[in-house]
Amino acid sequence: MRPLDPPKRLLLGPGPSMVAPRVYQAMSKPVVGYLDPYCFQVIEEIQAGLRNVFGTKNELTIPISGTGSAGMETAVANFAEPGEKFAVFVNGFFSERINEMARRQGAQIVRLEKPWGEIFDDAEAREFIQRERPRVVAYVQAETSTGAFQPGKAICEAAHEADALVIADCVTSLGGMPVEVDATGIDIAYSCSQKCLSCPPGLSPVTVSPRAWKRLESRTTPVQSWYLDLKLLEAYYKGHKYHHTVPISMLYALHEGLSLVEEEGLEKRWERHRRNHLALVAALEKMGLAMHVAQGRRLWTLNTPRVPHGIDDMNIRKRLLDGHGIEILGGFGPLAGKVFRIGLMGSSSTEENVALLADALGKALAAERSQAARS
Amino acid sequence: MRPLDPPKRLLLGPGPSMVAPRVYQAMSKPVVGYLDPYCFQVIEEIQAGLRNVFGTKNELTIPISGTGSAGMETAVANFAEPGEKFAVFVNGFFSERINEMARRQGAQIVRLEKPWGEIFDDAEAREFIQRERPRVVAYVQAETSTGAFQPGKAICEAAHEADALVIADCVTSLGGMPVEVDATGIDIAYSCSQKCLSCPPGLSPVTVSPRAWKRLESRTTPVQSWYLDLKLLEAYYKGHKYHHTVPISMLYALHEGLSLVEEEGLEKRWERHRRNHLALVAALEKMGLAMHVAQGRRLWTLNTPRVPHGIDDMNIRKRLLDGHGIEILGGFGPLAGKVFRIGLMGSSSTEENVALLADALGKALAAERSQAARS
Repeated sequence: MRPLDPPKRLLLGPGPSMVAPRVYQAMSKPVVGYLDPYCFQVIEEIQAGLRNVFGTKNELTIPISGTGSAGMETAVANFAEPGEKFAVFVNGFFSERINEMARRQGAQIVRLEKPWGEIFDDAEAREFIQRERPRVVAYVQAETSTGAFQPGKAICEAAHEADALVIADCVTSLGGMPVEVDATGIDIAYSCSQKCLSCPPGLSPVTVSPRAWKRLESRTTPVQSWYLDLKLLEAYYKGHKYHHTVPISMLYALHEGLSLVEEEGLEKRWERHRRNHLALVAALEKMGLAMHVAQGRRLWTLNTPRVPHGIDDMNIRKRLLDGHGIEILGGFGPLAGKVFRIGLMGSSSTEENVALLADALGKALAAERSQAARS
Repeated sequence: MRPLDPPKRLLLGPGPSMVAPRVYQAMSKPVVGYLDPYCFQVIEEIQAGLRNVFGTKNELTIPISGTGSAGMETAVANFAEPGEKFAVFVNGFFSERINEMARRQGAQIVRLEKPWGEIFDDAEAREFIQRERPRVVAYVQAETSTGAFQPGKAICEAAHEADALVIADCVTSLGGMPVEVDATGIDIAYSCSQKCLSCPPGLSPVTVSPRAWKRLESRTTPVQSWYLDLKLLEAYYKGHKYHHTVPISMLYALHEGLSLVEEEGLEKRWERHRRNHLALVAALEKMGLAMHVAQGRRLWTLNTPRVPHGIDDMNIRKRLLDGHGIEILGGFGPLAGKVFRIGLMGSSSTEENVALLADALGKALAAERSQAARS
């Protein structure tokens, strides 16, 4: 085995993002056991910090011991039941993933679809829920595959009128823009550690409303996942009863990431993300790139300029990685080859990074065009 | 939130164990993306290192992005099928956990039971499998709740004759004593990062035989877990197709932990664990403690002396933690209050730690007895 010697990347893709130096230091703190009083102190502070970024008073607010997709599976596996109606607003890669997870749980899935990058308006969201009257409604607040932000208030109101629970994917919004779980009416939200919280991947914050908890208590079929069973997890996080060995070094990381949020102030942090997003959009438009998502519907955290006609996005990404050490990614599915995905999340969202990326991307596009002209 | 300031513990419980200093350093290396060529280089070296400690040539040998129980759930969720017969050798807490996971998958469970701390002999194992002819057989090689080692050769032979697959829990053996997946005939084995591999908790190494892979390919019902679906995981680890954002800092840790195994030499590492285990047993017996598991059936990694009559194990553990900063744990279920669980795993398995623990435990027992005599 060769000694570890990772290249220094500027991570401006859809995640992982740059890890704050203090977070690296936190992970080097000595490990303690999963029943150590200090472990529970760290967990309690993490829970308070997570409630702050989620915008919730939900008692059951915990870090799942897996990456963002484990958080998604926690939400789906605990609340989708075999044969019950599960509604998904489908407008991107991650809503398709929710659909796939619910299918595996045996739920009866109903879908409302939009092209990737568009969002659902209040009237159509309401009409869909009123027509279908599902038990659970899922939508993606921050669609990492498209860069679109889906408001949730109308969805949550209609869902609650129909006695449905609402799951929202906040993987790319938590810590970077307002998530507002309680004000929106979201029942179950999940996110990840490696985007706007400036930590490495490995944890998935999840929050569960009292209304959702009540549903869980009346559930008659067992949750198929033991590892992600929220009742067992609650017994550990609240009751300190052994469930699994929590990843303590990652908990230290998340604790530090949330301390950074607290020190910066949540609203100031949102404003930083918004400001750098607007600066990037201005720079991209100045170099002639069009944004895929309409103004006013864009995430502040993940930007999706369209790949200019005649340009191969893979070549540009390779030029950025090899020539500048900058990672950005391309599109999935219907957006493959059509958009770049540029993240400005957590520690990655700085004025300097906007300038670096704009400069490097401009050069890569120019070089690519000049090479195309020569050949 | 208060600044992180964990107490320095000497971790001699059933895990997490002491993390090697170089592993802490590894986690502070810069994060790269999940599609970065460097990420795949690290993963490939981890796979080679894991094959070495597992004693296998299995191509599908990967770290699951969760703790040891996620590895257990990977094994069960991919290979237990609704209505199919799933046999469990039950002689401790973790075989009960396998049973519970298989129940949630809808498998038809058959059990062979023994008191906690005993193991199954070849004849009874064979007879059970021949009688039941299950599709899957599961046993715990290294039972963390009892300290017993279960040999697997007879189980695997009988299972293969019946065309069954064998799952073995190697959570407490991997890297500390011979696991020998291929020589034993185990089809699916899983472990964890935080015991004999000297890393923090957060990853679960899993290995899958070609025979088990064939079963997976012919599986007709979908695996209920998307996050732990081995076919999707293989597509990422082998085909470099996006599945989830792998916890790269934990992968760095595991890479370093496996480098340490390589440098020490696997057989020398086993011998170190055996030697320190024997020294601890001698010390415990010298102070009048009886071992719960019969000689020749004991793990080298996790020791279970019986709690002396009239002693409250909680008081002893509190004395060790508060007075000496040493963590050991007690028993579960039928062994609650009856055994101590003392781990000597990975970096925790040293001559010095044996001496420290023996000294501190001796003092704690003496203090407890003298307090009892006074009151």
